[in-house]
Amino acid sequence: MKTYLECIPCFMQQAYRTARIATSDEKKIKEVLNVVGEMIKSIPMENTPPETGNIIYQKISEITEVHDPYKEIKKANIKEALSLYPELKKNIENSDDRLLTAIRIAIAGNVIDLGVNKKFNIVDDLKQILKQDFAIFDYEDFKNQLNRAELVLYLGDNAGESVFDKLLIEELGKPVTYAVRDIPVINDCVIEDAVTSGLDKVATLISSGSTAPATILSLCNEDFIEKFKNADLVISKGQGNYEGLSQVNRSVFFMLKAKCPVIANNLNVKENDIVLKSINIH
Amino acid sequence: MKTYLECIPCFMQQAYRTARIATSDEKKIKEVLNVVGEMIKSIPMENTPPETGNIIYQKISEITEVHDPYKEIKKANIKEALSLYPELKKNIENSDDRLLTAIRIAIAGNVIDLGVNKKFNIVDDLKQILKQDFAIFDYEDFKNQLNRAELVLYLGDNAGESVFDKLLIEELGKPVTYAVRDIPVINDCVIEDAVTSGLDKVATLISSGSTAPATILSLCNEDFIEKFKNADLVISKGQGNYEGLSQVNRSVFFMLKAKCPVIANNLNVKENDIVLKSINIH
Repeated sequence: MKTYLECIPCFMQQAYRTARIATSDEKKIKEVLNVVGEMIKSIPMENTPPETGNIIYQKISEITEVHDPYKEIKKANIKEALSLYPELKKNIENSDDRLLTAIRIAIAGNVIDLGVNKKFNIVDDLKQILKQDFAIFDYEDFKNQLNRAELVLYLGDNAGESVFDKLLIEELGKPVTYAVRDIPVINDCVIEDAVTSGLDKVATLISSGSTAPATILSLCNEDFIEKFKNADLVISKGQGNYEGLSQVNRSVFFMLKAKCPVIANNLNVKENDIVLKSINIH
Repeated sequence: MKTYLECIPCFMQQAYRTARIATSDEKKIKEVLNVVGEMIKSIPMENTPPETGNIIYQKISEITEVHDPYKEIKKANIKEALSLYPELKKNIENSDDRLLTAIRIAIAGNVIDLGVNKKFNIVDDLKQILKQDFAIFDYEDFKNQLNRAELVLYLGDNAGESVFDKLLIEELGKPVTYAVRDIPVINDCVIEDAVTSGLDKVATLISSGSTAPATILSLCNEDFIEKFKNADLVISKGQGNYEGLSQVNRSVFFMLKAKCPVIANNLNVKENDIVLKSINIH
């Protein structure tokens, strides 16, 4: 997905929010805003937003000298998600369609997104999403590909959401490789977070190599690219991964909640809609 | 009020929104964002936010070549406010404290603020504000000064809100001078809007001379400064005027709804609180 003009004030908002979390030094925060402000004229609008995010978050890290500002927040989110795990597991076990309920829960986890300027309440969002209609629902296609798949590549998104991903992986019944970001960026999941979330028990964990808040193939490592090409089924969680991969040359299933107006427009859905979208390129 | 770091992403958001309303030419909108982005490093943080707003809105006007992007929106807001006038007049007439009800209504009108990134529904807001407690309530002080006043200077804010100001002016029972911005900026009231709102029937209309979305004394004309010094009572509506005058060297009564977190913090109230605040400097 290309960058829309509307993304630019959002970059500035994200830069402010992250710098404010990283440091209380007002001069450093102002320096972040100065640098991001100066960057605006050279943002390639044909690039995806997380490619620009990649540069911005690196600048914030350099200026504030804080490399994982969301570390404690990520821990707290994983802890909260783990505390919900037993009840959600029961929810799945008692449902008529276990796979679909697990997909809904995995999408609900996607609200734990600190790149988007919204407050969230995971318990309220779970209740809502468990009964919400899908705006795009390529479920039959998903089940067909899953049935035929021997290897599933699952692209993780945020820390905390990762616990909900575990519930879905447990329902897939196939060998799963779970790919995460290479370094901390916003509250996205890295290997350590995946382990804390218990994902090492149900999947092979790998770094995609991407330092951006998304799977950006040009930033990914060779091993990941190989797995991405050869996987029978790719599940892509969240907005960032959609922004990075929406025009990629292979079939991918996107699971997300449309949390910003730009992505909602791009998907032709409404804000807060939930989506299970297949892109099929042969 | 000085500029807070949090104001900077908001400047960018306002610039985007106004440029988008002014033109559909994506290149011009991008140019606005480029220019505002470059400005960030030189924003004097000790200045008030509307002083920077003054420069930003002038740049938008230059780049888009649209000098009153909110013209139609202002007309529609005044029209809607005028349609509510008869019922609100009855509300005041039937209330136990006519003056206080008129103040509440004038503050409710303050939600018609297109500089702040919020949707508003004037009818819902009126219902809410008519029963809402004030977070700061210097009403006794206000009544005392009003009783003694021979001349009231009323600093207008947005177009549409101006109709609600008329209802309050009708309850003041004193000669009133109503001051507006010198040129169109955001949806702020100019002389033409004040006339459309019927304010010429109840007050002497003047331009403050300010081209900023606020009363900034250094931008005001001599005639206004004279009236500002000599008025027995100054009523200042809205956030912009508060930002511009919160540290001024005379007594002023501020009436506003705290619509952004920065102003709420500065006033030590919560977002969405309503305020009748006196500053008394002798």
